[in-house]
Amino acid sequence: MRTVDLIAKKRDGGELFSEEISFLIRGYTDGTIPDYQMSALAMAVLFRGMTPRERADLTMAMVDSGDKIDLSGVSGVKVDKHSTGGVGDTTTLVLAPLVASVGVPVAKMSGRGLGHTGGTIDKLESVPGFHVEISNEQFLELVNTNGLAVIGQSGDLTPADKKLYALRDVTATVESIPLIASSIMSKKIAAGADAIVLDVKTGDGAFMKEMEDTRELARAMVDIGNRVGRRTIAVISDMSQPLGFAIGNALEVKEAIDTLRGEGPADLYELSLTLGSHMVVLAGKADNVESARKLLEESVASGKALETFKTFLAAQGGDASVVDHPERLPTAAYVIQVPALSDGYIAGLAAERIGTAAMMLGAGRATKESEIDLAVGIVLHKKVGDRVAKGEPLATIHANRQQVDDVMESLYGSIAVGAEPVEALPLVYGVVDGSSD
Amino acid sequence: MRTVDLIAKKRDGGELFSEEISFLIRGYTDGTIPDYQMSALAMAVLFRGMTPRERADLTMAMVDSGDKIDLSGVSGVKVDKHSTGGVGDTTTLVLAPLVASVGVPVAKMSGRGLGHTGGTIDKLESVPGFHVEISNEQFLELVNTNGLAVIGQSGDLTPADKKLYALRDVTATVESIPLIASSIMSKKIAAGADAIVLDVKTGDGAFMKEMEDTRELARAMVDIGNRVGRRTIAVISDMSQPLGFAIGNALEVKEAIDTLRGEGPADLYELSLTLGSHMVVLAGKADNVESARKLLEESVASGKALETFKTFLAAQGGDASVVDHPERLPTAAYVIQVPALSDGYIAGLAAERIGTAAMMLGAGRATKESEIDLAVGIVLHKKVGDRVAKGEPLATIHANRQQVDDVMESLYGSIAVGAEPVEALPLVYGVVDGSSD
Repeated sequence: MRTVDLIAKKRDGGELFSEEISFLIRGYTDGTIPDYQMSALAMAVLFRGMTPRERADLTMAMVDSGDKIDLSGVSGVKVDKHSTGGVGDTTTLVLAPLVASVGVPVAKMSGRGLGHTGGTIDKLESVPGFHVEISNEQFLELVNTNGLAVIGQSGDLTPADKKLYALRDVTATVESIPLIASSIMSKKIAAGADAIVLDVKTGDGAFMKEMEDTRELARAMVDIGNRVGRRTIAVISDMSQPLGFAIGNALEVKEAIDTLRGEGPADLYELSLTLGSHMVVLAGKADNVESARKLLEESVASGKALETFKTFLAAQGGDASVVDHPERLPTAAYVIQVPALSDGYIAGLAAERIGTAAMMLGAGRATKESEIDLAVGIVLHKKVGDRVAKGEPLATIHANRQQVDDVMESLYGSIAVGAEPVEALPLVYGVVDGSSD
Repeated sequence: MRTVDLIAKKRDGGELFSEEISFLIRGYTDGTIPDYQMSALAMAVLFRGMTPRERADLTMAMVDSGDKIDLSGVSGVKVDKHSTGGVGDTTTLVLAPLVASVGVPVAKMSGRGLGHTGGTIDKLESVPGFHVEISNEQFLELVNTNGLAVIGQSGDLTPADKKLYALRDVTATVESIPLIASSIMSKKIAAGADAIVLDVKTGDGAFMKEMEDTRELARAMVDIGNRVGRRTIAVISDMSQPLGFAIGNALEVKEAIDTLRGEGPADLYELSLTLGSHMVVLAGKADNVESARKLLEESVASGKALETFKTFLAAQGGDASVVDHPERLPTAAYVIQVPALSDGYIAGLAAERIGTAAMMLGAGRATKESEIDLAVGIVLHKKVGDRVAKGEPLATIHANRQQVDDVMESLYGSIAVGAEPVEALPLVYGVVDGSSD
């Protein structure tokens, strides 16, 4: 088998056999296939696409390129959730204790990552004492006991994907649905998921800006999952405005606590219930999403969801009293209101730009070396369609510097207020499951 | 300027600005742009193409990447000829003395190369004593005195093209008309050509097998030349059977001598006159191709063409007596006939396979290190459409080994004889000049 012939085959619109895809990924991982051949292949894939069979093969070849997490020590169906990213997305913090509280085991391996705010681990570290430095044995034991544990990334999972993603980033080959879909799915499968619920975001603040692309990506991922024996469904949700109100690490933990208590932002709670009920069904804890949803609502109402969160925090060294005393979370030195300059209606909340404003305050990492300030961030007070009166706060800036004119200016540039009434935006656009066309 | 953004621009069908193309080629040559970005770009170009302006800019960026031959010391318009390659192509050996004999200065830089037979220099070295190790000063002086000289490649011409070509070869990005056209044109321009006549081959033995591709390549090259101030025309000629009869180094020199004497194969003579008359017109030595052709025919009839060849050989140390005594060229130990096995008509001469048969005898190089046997090769006796009688020789094998069953078998497999009459193949399909659409 010669790599150049396989590149030519894909270039000419051919379908690569399973063994050919294994050969390419194995060779790329061990370095016998150089970057310059892989980037040419990636560009050919970008133009020619991949058949569903090729996508599934590529996914599993990447899974097989490295370590796999063994969750067989956890009893029950391990359902993982993945979000394609967005601004102020607090769903993981809500969902994990929420579904764990009704018996869905959550064995979460998480990262720090780059972005407007930190990753799930950074956010959780705003709880004093909380840490993820636990052994694999402790991790599995905690999941079995409490239903929920979070551990940092260990082992060399999907090295082929890491190498390929870094290459795609510098060769303009990121924007390929088959490559995006297999990258995401390979990571979830290597992390031990039996079933997967995908939250695929669409709109200005999402990776996918157009609905047609979003649906295609969702269908591609669901198809891969079901082909390789992992039941997978995708919820397509809106990211043309930030989800919830908080963008910042401690601020999002507080928002998650509010939501688990039933007092959080309506959109965050609704999306958590939607995603959560699919997780409950895939885990076999309910027959259908309607009864699953009821289970979750009851858990919030009874305080069981919040209790699960407390137990989880304490088990990993965290001060669970923050749940009742959120003022014990890190707080910023300056809290500055951003008042509306006129009466009107919120016509737009540019998610991406608002996220960037939070980053300007230090809430996220621009490079791997950046330090995160857990206390800072932005809390919005309105959603698109909301009425606003002149002088009323549009947002609150939590900063550790006094001078925030840059952030203020950025926020005014991101929050559009119009004179005419505006319709509220939908939250969920649809669900893609194995039976979707 | 970021390379990844330029790759994305081309990927999305955009047109690269002149400065962007310069940036890419400069960076690739000096190593600041890595192979993996250039191969992704090449694949994007393969899918998206390049506008005429981009092709011209790419050509000149590659010319500017290295040394340029200064032919200003040669008086007159320097017209270079380039053939896109084929089997048994002896035109350079005929054309150079032919046009030089009517006043077109030929300052030829040539190579050895890989292929079925050697390059022009290898072929000329079958003349005892002939060598190309002359200084640049001698080279220019010989052109001014005799109208013709050949020198080996020196200097670092178009290093960007060399590097890019090697990369394309292993990344399945050879088959791109803009990249092929700019590669060829950059080499001719760096070698000092004022005007260029292209012999673009089409058919089984050529790089371009299909007429539509051939015309597109011809148009692309002619357009580049005329855009960058080098008058360029292209002749599209047949390579679905070998040109002339001889395939082998000394055998082709003998054939060239016969042709310059007016006694060579009709097709080789005709194509030499066609290409030559365009060269004469571009050099300003005739007003139109008809009168140019007359000049060339007169030069052959008067013996001036042959005399120019003798003078040229002698000036570079060669034994010019080979012209009148071709038996003084290297000869093979075994001369074996390949008789027709039945009566009939030549239905096909598979140029590529016949070339490979010559290589099996040692006439060409498979790798840079291979030794060439100048004496060996194949002489055909028929063209497609010719009648043949059982027992009559179809070809003659010139070998330095007694056992040639493999070559014999290969030739029988390449020469198709049918019972029904077959039409002769055309030689020239057309001319593409600056005014062609």
